[in-house]
Amino acid sequence: MIDLVKNYSIMARRMKRSVIRELLKMSTNPGLISFAGGLPDAKAFPIEVMEDICASVIRNHGARALQYGITEGETILVDELIKLHAANGIPGLKRENILVTVASQQALDLVGRIFIDHTDPIITECPTYLGGLQAFRAYGALPVGIPMDDDGILVDRLEPELKKLRSEEEHYKFLYLVPDFQNPSGVTLSLERRKRIVQLSEEYNFLIVEDSPYRDLRYEGEHIPTIYSLDKTQNVIGLYTFSKIFVPGMRLGWIIAHPAIIEKLVVAKQAVDLCTPAFTQYIAAEFCRRGLLEGHIEKVKAIYKTKKDAMLDALKTHMPDLPGLRWTKPDGGLFLWLELPAGMNADEMIYKAIDAKVAYVIGSAFFPQGGGLNTMRLNFSAPSVDDIYEGMKRLGAVIRKEYRPA
Amino acid sequence: MIDLVKNYSIMARRMKRSVIRELLKMSTNPGLISFAGGLPDAKAFPIEVMEDICASVIRNHGARALQYGITEGETILVDELIKLHAANGIPGLKRENILVTVASQQALDLVGRIFIDHTDPIITECPTYLGGLQAFRAYGALPVGIPMDDDGILVDRLEPELKKLRSEEEHYKFLYLVPDFQNPSGVTLSLERRKRIVQLSEEYNFLIVEDSPYRDLRYEGEHIPTIYSLDKTQNVIGLYTFSKIFVPGMRLGWIIAHPAIIEKLVVAKQAVDLCTPAFTQYIAAEFCRRGLLEGHIEKVKAIYKTKKDAMLDALKTHMPDLPGLRWTKPDGGLFLWLELPAGMNADEMIYKAIDAKVAYVIGSAFFPQGGGLNTMRLNFSAPSVDDIYEGMKRLGAVIRKEYRPA
Repeated sequence: MIDLVKNYSIMARRMKRSVIRELLKMSTNPGLISFAGGLPDAKAFPIEVMEDICASVIRNHGARALQYGITEGETILVDELIKLHAANGIPGLKRENILVTVASQQALDLVGRIFIDHTDPIITECPTYLGGLQAFRAYGALPVGIPMDDDGILVDRLEPELKKLRSEEEHYKFLYLVPDFQNPSGVTLSLERRKRIVQLSEEYNFLIVEDSPYRDLRYEGEHIPTIYSLDKTQNVIGLYTFSKIFVPGMRLGWIIAHPAIIEKLVVAKQAVDLCTPAFTQYIAAEFCRRGLLEGHIEKVKAIYKTKKDAMLDALKTHMPDLPGLRWTKPDGGLFLWLELPAGMNADEMIYKAIDAKVAYVIGSAFFPQGGGLNTMRLNFSAPSVDDIYEGMKRLGAVIRKEYRPA
Repeated sequence: MIDLVKNYSIMARRMKRSVIRELLKMSTNPGLISFAGGLPDAKAFPIEVMEDICASVIRNHGARALQYGITEGETILVDELIKLHAANGIPGLKRENILVTVASQQALDLVGRIFIDHTDPIITECPTYLGGLQAFRAYGALPVGIPMDDDGILVDRLEPELKKLRSEEEHYKFLYLVPDFQNPSGVTLSLERRKRIVQLSEEYNFLIVEDSPYRDLRYEGEHIPTIYSLDKTQNVIGLYTFSKIFVPGMRLGWIIAHPAIIEKLVVAKQAVDLCTPAFTQYIAAEFCRRGLLEGHIEKVKAIYKTKKDAMLDALKTHMPDLPGLRWTKPDGGLFLWLELPAGMNADEMIYKAIDAKVAYVIGSAFFPQGGGLNTMRLNFSAPSVDDIYEGMKRLGAVIRKEYRPA
């Protein structure tokens, strides 16, 4: 074979295997309880209606659903998405505001593709979603992470960074946010800060990529308006997915944005995969058309709320009383975030944890510019309630054992 | 909104809407007969078995098929693909030789992603597949087209080009070929030339990307071995798809290659869309597992052979007797290629054709470095036999009218 290394592109040489993926491989020993994944609970899949929905799609739309589709997305699904947003605080979307994607990861890739040049800074939360980092870094983005507290990204730290980037004449393209029940932290951005971010986007001239995969999975409190709905200047690109509210195995998501941006994303998508599978789009459209989505989301929320409450209770019961040990208390989503006492190292501790048959994701993976060694992400959607208690008992014991007072 | 044009990446500014796509938009007037598309005939879809296959996937594999999948592709499908290749001249593939993709267009994109840097030359047939050009150009490739005759790419013209690129120390990464019933020309590469190309790849140190979407749709003559099977040094990346032999609406394709290349493509795919939909993979696997694929391909071939014969007959009947007017006689696939007398301009004639209610794709779109103004691509899979005769009558009349003797 020819010398591949010399043939690989810069992009290929920049690519790294996902840390999470490698961790997940280590986490397959029997008996291990994993808080490391992010998979929905298969019990939350509407399997019972799927057979009938597929049958009806094939009978009523077979020739169309099995044929090549439209790059923008099948109209039958796009129209359902418009209704969905209208019922959820974003009225008046037109077909040209929407692009259907192979789930959110493709949306992140397409956004990276049309905006990022090699060494362009982008601004993210810190910690931020790893899949976003991977997508944007492939195009050479240099992410600048802004710290967060329990109300989300610190806008007081954002503005000086924007000033600095502007004075350096850097071409910062967008701010990437997961405002609701963020992956990895579980934190939700406050209304006040959302409004301030919209102001800043006008003042400092940047787009906002608002990634909302978990938004509908709120277990407590009231919905906070999307940044998309607060913005009046169309500076926001909204990313949505069926992965958590329907099923991930269809790989269906969508982007909402100004038609000029959608148009550019459509041309990008033509070169990337021509179109999202029509068949899965018809299935999702039929699920929505039958009015099943809302009730299904309630069912999913009930399952995950129980698990989230179990994890918070298990943390209270099993975590040792150590200075600085704390965790977030999310109102929704699939994850919470744990900070170990300063000086502890979750990157090193993971091997001990796996020996003790419990796994987490090292928090440092979500830090765009390094740091976060004393943090971890814990997932509560995949494990059973019993496993949550048992796993937390194991994790508490590992932390207690590894702690060295300063 | 912020000034988008200033924010778009180099890649976004390089993107062009597909000419074919724009043509197809023009071709929707009622009564127009289109030879411009490339859609399979929906009558060639196995709709009658789909309901039962979906039901069985949901009943037997629901939790797995609706969940996130593996980036490499679902094992149940990969194992069917290994059997498929073993029965078709490529025995001994291992799971690590295969990556399942969102059809061939994603395969082209991923290959471009891991090999092409801005201004890297790649070598293609001339004319070549437009979707390949779009995918590779997005990464900044500069395609060098090598002319073809009725036996495919002219290897005598290929070698001097390789010599030149090598002497210029250019980093030419791969040769892109559609050896069987090429899109757009319908031409098949001879065995002798396939062997010579394999030799050249060793001598001049380049990879071969062998794109085989139509390979199984042979209506006449004997199969010629794939370049993949002729090569002993693992310099070949093979691209395959279910779009033409099963259904396009699942968007399922796959890549076969050396495990080191597959590994790199897998990491690239993680950032691009995490994984191909598991659900559609289970459906395709079940279709194969039931032994339905082979019989289905026979059915599809019968449909398209009739149409191809009709188009060749209609051409003979309706084309005017003009100097230099000729067309290819493909042994398979979906397309044939027509050359107008020298000096005629198919790019200008298309508007007259559409006025006369018949459409084709301008051949110049498939020429990577310009030229081909007197050529066009004609598709025979989508129109009915009656429309093929009527459309060819209209096209013949337009050509007769537009012809000016030199």
